[in-house]
Amino acid sequence: MTPLFYLADLFGVMVFAITGALMAGRKSMDLFGVLVIALVTALGGGTLRDLILDNHPVSWIRDDTYILVASLAAVGTVLWVRLTRPINERGLLVADAFGLALFTVYGTEVALQHQVPISTAVIMGVMTGVAGGVIRDVICNEIPLIFQKEIYATACIAGSLVFIGLRHLDLAHELATGIAMLVVLLTRLAAIHWHLSLPQFHLLDRD
Amino acid sequence: MTPLFYLADLFGVMVFAITGALMAGRKSMDLFGVLVIALVTALGGGTLRDLILDNHPVSWIRDDTYILVASLAAVGTVLWVRLTRPINERGLLVADAFGLALFTVYGTEVALQHQVPISTAVIMGVMTGVAGGVIRDVICNEIPLIFQKEIYATACIAGSLVFIGLRHLDLAHELATGIAMLVVLLTRLAAIHWHLSLPQFHLLDRD
Amino acid sequence: MTPLFYLADLFGVMVFAITGALMAGRKSMDLFGVLVIALVTALGGGTLRDLILDNHPVSWIRDDTYILVASLAAVGTVLWVRLTRPINERGLLVADAFGLALFTVYGTEVALQHQVPISTAVIMGVMTGVAGGVIRDVICNEIPLIFQKEIYATACIAGSLVFIGLRHLDLAHELATGIAMLVVLLTRLAAIHWHLSLPQFHLLDRD
Repeated sequence: MTPLFYLADLFGVMVFAITGALMAGRKSMDLFGVLVIALVTALGGGTLRDLILDNHPVSWIRDDTYILVASLAAVGTVLWVRLTRPINERGLLVADAFGLALFTVYGTEVALQHQVPISTAVIMGVMTGVAGGVIRDVICNEIPLIFQKEIYATACIAGSLVFIGLRHLDLAHELATGIAMLVVLLTRLAAIHWHLSLPQFHLLDRD
Repeated sequence: MTPLFYLADLFGVMVFAITGALMAGRKSMDLFGVLVIALVTALGGGTLRDLILDNHPVSWIRDDTYILVASLAAVGTVLWVRLTRPINERGLLVADAFGLALFTVYGTEVALQHQVPISTAVIMGVMTGVAGGVIRDVICNEIPLIFQKEIYATACIAGSLVFIGLRHLDLAHELATGIAMLVVLLTRLAAIHWHLSLPQFHLLDRD
Repeated sequence: MTPLFYLADLFGVMVFAITGALMAGRKSMDLFGVLVIALVTALGGGTLRDLILDNHPVSWIRDDTYILVASLAAVGTVLWVRLTRPINERGLLVADAFGLALFTVYGTEVALQHQVPISTAVIMGVMTGVAGGVIRDVICNEIPLIFQKEIYATACIAGSLVFIGLRHLDLAHELATGIAMLVVLLTRLAAIHWHLSLPQFHLLDRD
């Protein structure tokens, strides 16, 4: 991992930890709850990916900077909100889109290094990007947001496929990473700006 | 795995993916949500079993036909319902019982190949059969159906025990599989037909 | 593992299985549901720890006494309540604190044997102590209690850190275990007695 990519990865961890801490605050959790939800949101997707790929040790065991960054982000979020500074929701959405782009491409790459089928690589990319948020929502007793609102995971699928395609064409690693991240980022920002959503599947509950 | 067993396995994946897609529709999820819930329902139980048994690579990484079948089943379910064809609930229940029978026996066998205690083999059989549905219900914010209604997991326990017993008696593999699957299938169909349930454990909430 | 420690471990499994069975009773689950929730509560934390540490086979596969004890505790709880004996809530809380103390120290030690960073060892200790209860609450569709009420996980963090510190000082294993368990136990009993809680993080839901 290049130093630039490593810093970007830590930035993604920080952003996801902040979204976790904010959700925990909406559920009036105590400080420990805030910390756990922040850690799970930031590191859950990558952990699940590593378990399924049998890729040990998982990232935050190999390097405890991840735990440190996520914990500081959680504590920082609580302090920030306590000092009654408003949260810049728009800024957070953009930062979240950046973290999503990075996690997706990184997850896809880890999978490719394990010589898995393309379908698995895409699933691992999407899982790295979104599973932390899904676990966060499930623990907080919410139906996961990403299954109901605005194009989110679709952006991951697109970015993951673009990355796989460019790598098959032997494009330089940095360039493929940059282009694929841009695909996720722009798709996501467009979805936020124009409130784009996938069609929903409504089925009446007949039970 | 014999070709017949492989086809049956794919049939089980298809049926479980359909039940996942239908549940996602009841929660008005978007197309991506439908796809994820279908995949998780169809492949979650086997994945959890493989992780706990340290049995890598997991089935759908080794062979991407599983992902393909589950995805097509999800998309097909949405199209079928959109075209306003009613769902044959009864047919689906029978198909689900068949998938359950197959997953249970297969999960038990995978565990036996790892030389685990009998209790573990039964747990792995039941887990393969029902864990996908439990994860589906938890993500969709429902208390898992199988803990509250009609004999379901009990059918798995019976089938798993019968399979282990017959294999200890050195019965031919195909025959043991067939008989054990029949035990699950008939128990389940009888439970559906006569609305058989296990006794419930009611405890007043005193908090 | 010394015989005394092994017996204590089984006692912890029993206590956690009872709390699982009681929660299942509050949700009017059937007997199978009671059994599953009891097993998950008693063994879920250790299983998750072993998966993340790649520590195979997991405890209850290596030794099926764990499954047996948890199952008997679940069945015993149902019988006890059916015979209308009241539950000694206070006694259960104290027993739970003891199980928590033991699981936390044991989880920390397993992690230390894998030469992980200190942050990971603490997380593994806390996870072993509390994750079973969190999975129980999530399956039962409740926001996990430990994120909202009374000091619980904080007691685990303290005990885990004390254990790591004493082991670094080369204190005898039994002594370090005893002192660290006492830290968890006393912190927890004090929190129960005086209703101590961590500050909560309230954030208005603006969606």
